[in-house]
Amino acid sequence: MQRLIVTLTTDFGLSDHFVGTMKGVILHVAPHARIVDICHALEPFDILGAALTLGEAYGYFPPGTVHVVVVDPGVGSARRPILASSGRHAFVAPDNGVLSLVYAREELREVRHVTSDHYFLRPASSTFHGRDIFAPVAGNLANGVEAEKFGPEITDYVRFEVPRPEPVDAHTLRGVVLKVDRFGNLITNFTPRDVPALFERRTGFKIRVGRSEVTALRASYSEGASGEVFAILGSMGYLEISTNRGAASQLTGAANGTEVQVSLEGALAAER
Amino acid sequence: MQRLIVTLTTDFGLSDHFVGTMKGVILHVAPHARIVDICHALEPFDILGAALTLGEAYGYFPPGTVHVVVVDPGVGSARRPILASSGRHAFVAPDNGVLSLVYAREELREVRHVTSDHYFLRPASSTFHGRDIFAPVAGNLANGVEAEKFGPEITDYVRFEVPRPEPVDAHTLRGVVLKVDRFGNLITNFTPRDVPALFERRTGFKIRVGRSEVTALRASYSEGASGEVFAILGSMGYLEISTNRGAASQLTGAANGTEVQVSLEGALAAER
Amino acid sequence: MQRLIVTLTTDFGLSDHFVGTMKGVILHVAPHARIVDICHALEPFDILGAALTLGEAYGYFPPGTVHVVVVDPGVGSARRPILASSGRHAFVAPDNGVLSLVYAREELREVRHVTSDHYFLRPASSTFHGRDIFAPVAGNLANGVEAEKFGPEITDYVRFEVPRPEPVDAHTLRGVVLKVDRFGNLITNFTPRDVPALFERRTGFKIRVGRSEVTALRASYSEGASGEVFAILGSMGYLEISTNRGAASQLTGAANGTEVQVSLEGALAAER
Repeated sequence: MQRLIVTLTTDFGLSDHFVGTMKGVILHVAPHARIVDICHALEPFDILGAALTLGEAYGYFPPGTVHVVVVDPGVGSARRPILASSGRHAFVAPDNGVLSLVYAREELREVRHVTSDHYFLRPASSTFHGRDIFAPVAGNLANGVEAEKFGPEITDYVRFEVPRPEPVDAHTLRGVVLKVDRFGNLITNFTPRDVPALFERRTGFKIRVGRSEVTALRASYSEGASGEVFAILGSMGYLEISTNRGAASQLTGAANGTEVQVSLEGALAAER
Repeated sequence: MQRLIVTLTTDFGLSDHFVGTMKGVILHVAPHARIVDICHALEPFDILGAALTLGEAYGYFPPGTVHVVVVDPGVGSARRPILASSGRHAFVAPDNGVLSLVYAREELREVRHVTSDHYFLRPASSTFHGRDIFAPVAGNLANGVEAEKFGPEITDYVRFEVPRPEPVDAHTLRGVVLKVDRFGNLITNFTPRDVPALFERRTGFKIRVGRSEVTALRASYSEGASGEVFAILGSMGYLEISTNRGAASQLTGAANGTEVQVSLEGALAAER
Repeated sequence: MQRLIVTLTTDFGLSDHFVGTMKGVILHVAPHARIVDICHALEPFDILGAALTLGEAYGYFPPGTVHVVVVDPGVGSARRPILASSGRHAFVAPDNGVLSLVYAREELREVRHVTSDHYFLRPASSTFHGRDIFAPVAGNLANGVEAEKFGPEITDYVRFEVPRPEPVDAHTLRGVVLKVDRFGNLITNFTPRDVPALFERRTGFKIRVGRSEVTALRASYSEGASGEVFAILGSMGYLEISTNRGAASQLTGAANGTEVQVSLEGALAAER
């Protein structure tokens, strides 16, 4: 089966030749491929950020898409290049946990260690596997080369869990800001499953983050009063801390990794 | 009619999953679509900036292009998603004025309120209509779904006029810097129609902007002397304030919204 | 011959309509063209940077690719638009040296002065030849228009050499940092040909750059100890100064143009 679309998620930025070079290699191998950028502005070596970004975007692409992730602090070391496949998508990445959200969300058929170096550019450099390994493997996948041709199946691939909120006491959970988006929204690691009462009652809660206390839950950004910091269920499925036409990150002073405490009137839901 | 090209103009930046996710949705609906970025670096909520950027670029695309604009401070509120169509182009955007330059420049057939929510992703979020409404509508347009299928025609859509220069006295007009481009050129809201004598005589004028007085009109950047701030007819059709191999914004201290005064020897042209 | 792929390398940035407008023009002329960005974040007017970026990326694209470069401080002046062709690639650019690395690496058939202005947008502006000249010429090349149709062959095109290291004494060469990449790696102008003993013996050398002295050569980034600044053979074929999971530019204080001295035990290789 030919695959039409190849997505790219990297920390390469857009100020060097890196991304363009990878696209050249992919198109050299698979001239019909349609290359789509998911993100290249991940912080250098930010594996969690890459996992979140890919995890959020990949599911919206059509079946048959090849997703390439290159956030790769271990390039040139013994870390393995891998190929993960589900019935719908294929994923090519270094084996450093960057596919962790895919492992959590996608029903995978298999994960393989990519060892068939006749698919690589030769000689492969020890510093740019995006060009020399990941891009040509993606191009060959786009051409319909079957997954088993790339190397043996493995089960000990690296994965991590996104940190979940933890109870501080009977009324309070402690979580974290997973990321701050372009608009300054704070994406926390709380989901409706963690604090069902908050989303059902929509009142009777207090959220502490940075220098702010948040007691309002809004249904859209534009519902917020001017300068008000509020909670909202964001489009990624996480509780977000936001403000209307402004940056909650500035108003709260919070950043990636800032602690978030959610306190609820009454005990935390038992079913947690 | 299948439409080949879908352009995107947003304030989503390139450091999150937003743009990649929208592309996934469009390609899921319309795998043949060719997606082209016009700009994603608009300042958050900068509706005028988006209108200018789209207004400048869209006309160069081939007939049949679908242009999607998502600068949308009112996402999740009652503001309407709209679809505007001319004989050549289709435009999908929130009804907040972001298509104002299209309304001014393109002979439109109709503007519709997009209400057919079976085209939307379900359930649609209240915070990311780019993904849940505008992208799938664009994909369906690319597939050839006809405009009338998306909702009823409206005439009370939101539009604004780009501010025009105004007379201060018999010799002077007061305008504004509409935007500062990547190179530091100041794009003003003066056109040759506003000050025909300036462009015909090419002398006998004085432009005050920031801390600079400009008395030279050049035909190309490289005609300017080192460090000289000069006027030039820019590629958008507006009077620009520029310098050769430098940034006029730095030399003048001007920015978006800075006042610009143009004084002409003799009276302002009567035909204005 | 139709050409499928058109690449773009510019200093236009991504915050204006410039790049999107060029893509519109190309697709208007050649709706089948596949446009690929190599880089748009070159410093304004950085001809050497553009030459290095294009020189590094172009060779990975498939035969038949059209490469467009617009870093063009002389736009609107007498500098010529040119078209360079080899058996594999075509290059469209201003004649200001931006193709110098192509001239050094690619076996060219010919370079032409593009004079056939019926291919241009009319009237062509004097400030945006990317839109009015280079894009439509690229589109016509993509449509299969033959090179000789665009203008007469020339031999006096502008070219420069990338500066090569020079001997300071019998043991020492003095070179330069050509560029700093996204990760803070310092790409120098030393190649293995300049200092073969360094890469063969892998010891017995000292590199001075900024406030650092480097005496270790590593095979991959991850071999470096924490905080260690080391030398490495980079993916561009140049000696790079790097550190593991950090920015060598910060640790050394070096930037574009910083002097780099390499001293070898024993005399410099005679074959240099």
